[in-house]
Amino acid sequence: MSVEKLTSEERDSWLAALPQWALARDGDAIARTFTFADFSEAFGFMTRVAILAEKRDHHPEWFNVYNRVEITLTTHDAGGLSLRDVKMARKIDALA
Amino acid sequence: MSVEKLTSEERDSWLAALPQWALARDGDAIARTFTFADFSEAFGFMTRVAILAEKRDHHPEWFNVYNRVEITLTTHDAGGLSLRDVKMARKIDALA
Repeated sequence: MSVEKLTSEERDSWLAALPQWALARDGDAIARTFTFADFSEAFGFMTRVAILAEKRDHHPEWFNVYNRVEITLTTHDAGGLSLRDVKMARKIDALA
Repeated sequence: MSVEKLTSEERDSWLAALPQWALARDGDAIARTFTFADFSEAFGFMTRVAILAEKRDHHPEWFNVYNRVEITLTTHDAGGLSLRDVKMARKIDALA
């Protein structure tokens, strides 16, 4: 999978298909906040994302407090957003 | 377990026994950063903390990126630090 940084044109094109994710860090990352019924449900989701992340060797930066999970995706090796983030965001959306 | 906010005297006394935790948020929280070999180990630790948190009904605010886990403890019901945070910090230390 490419780890090349997306051009801003590519980025905007891919992000149009991820309406619940917002650009972060001057366009070098995407972020989404997920809200669940309670901590147990939130952490269950995090566990599924963790397994996915480990499998794809692409790890999120994330924050959790009780039923809220904030996920930020970026590709350090690319110095910004790559296709790996777009594909990971899609997979995460499918789990939520 | 008391959810009364600790006085600053009580707080300092309890924190003397938690040398790896630092005061945060103007003294209303304590925080510690844990570093592991990799993501799998970090998330394994988080899973144990999650189970502990759910059991004690006292949940952390935490951030993870790859092998690093930053945990912040505070007691919202007390408007600051309570004995619940001190006891939770001790239990977390025992897991790390």
